[in-house]
Amino acid sequence: MELTIIGTGNMARALATRALAGGHSVTVVGKDEQHAQEAASAVEGSISTAVTGDPIGGDLVVLAVYYPDARDAVEQYADQLAGKPVVDITNPVNETFDGLVVPPDGSATQELAALAPEARFVKAFNTTFARTLEPGEVSGHAIDVLIAGDDEPAKDAVATFARDGGLNPIDTGPLRRARELEAAGLLHMTLQDKLGTGFGSALKFIA
Amino acid sequence: MELTIIGTGNMARALATRALAGGHSVTVVGKDEQHAQEAASAVEGSISTAVTGDPIGGDLVVLAVYYPDARDAVEQYADQLAGKPVVDITNPVNETFDGLVVPPDGSATQELAALAPEARFVKAFNTTFARTLEPGEVSGHAIDVLIAGDDEPAKDAVATFARDGGLNPIDTGPLRRARELEAAGLLHMTLQDKLGTGFGSALKFIA
Repeated sequence: MELTIIGTGNMARALATRALAGGHSVTVVGKDEQHAQEAASAVEGSISTAVTGDPIGGDLVVLAVYYPDARDAVEQYADQLAGKPVVDITNPVNETFDGLVVPPDGSATQELAALAPEARFVKAFNTTFARTLEPGEVSGHAIDVLIAGDDEPAKDAVATFARDGGLNPIDTGPLRRARELEAAGLLHMTLQDKLGTGFGSALKFIA
Repeated sequence: MELTIIGTGNMARALATRALAGGHSVTVVGKDEQHAQEAASAVEGSISTAVTGDPIGGDLVVLAVYYPDARDAVEQYADQLAGKPVVDITNPVNETFDGLVVPPDGSATQELAALAPEARFVKAFNTTFARTLEPGEVSGHAIDVLIAGDDEPAKDAVATFARDGGLNPIDTGPLRRARELEAAGLLHMTLQDKLGTGFGSALKFIA
């Protein structure tokens, strides 16, 4: 599988690391060549680079940027995203990081999907932090990747990517379930001070 | 500490078991004496019984009934609950168990608090299932008890009860955080078929 990861930050790098671990190929798209190269250098293994404005290829596109930037990217690339599985990993937090900026009965993913109705949107990786995603496990537990979407083949592609990378994908249901995933993501983020885990914890369903 | 648990079902019994394990005393309140006695008999150890309509005592009152019944109980007991820490454990699910019946920007706990403004409401135990709460652990992990509320002493009382019972209390913040806890509770419930865990899983933050 070929992944295009829009973004060059910690989450983009961690996702690229998992993709390579699973035997897939990766292109990271930076806002300029320097950012893209820095991300490529930080990842162990070989990945390709591109910059904003270049044509978007790949079997799976991941929006690994903050929510406002994800909106910009979807608006910019709406035509090229048509028909493609697109993964929204965002937590649309407000400025004080204690609430969400999307409608309370909706989600970032549904807002993004409205901007590019022909893209096949999937919510995933918003409850995982880069620090745990990069190694793929925490204290011997594979990271749970919670997935939501209405397009089954698109969800399957995300699950395959996750599983190949040593993660534990869980299909949580339809796209509207992104609302609960974003609530869980907010909860996880707001607990970091309390838990003292410095964005090194993982939300996991244990049995 | 003296706990009054309104309800006689699996959650009421599991909470009573944890309370006894922590050295606290328990009264379960049933809709009639038979239900209360059945719950008392099912719990290992000695607990007291009462029936709906009896005066409510105790240092901590737990509403261990379904959301519509919790509303009825709060309306009925509003005067007696004034000043008391009251724990809402409900997941206000709809008839198809795939959404919540409370306002999307609110929570069951906030709705209940509006019915008895002088009670000191705390959200807790809505992300824990009876099957894991009863033993207090799953696969060697203490159960996380996610707590939300605006009254710090009331939250402290709930945390003490949880900790004494071998559980891992986590203060998630103000009462409005109940919204995210209920989203997490819904997510956990809806995943049971997918996970095949038969309400025997636990939502846990691992580091």
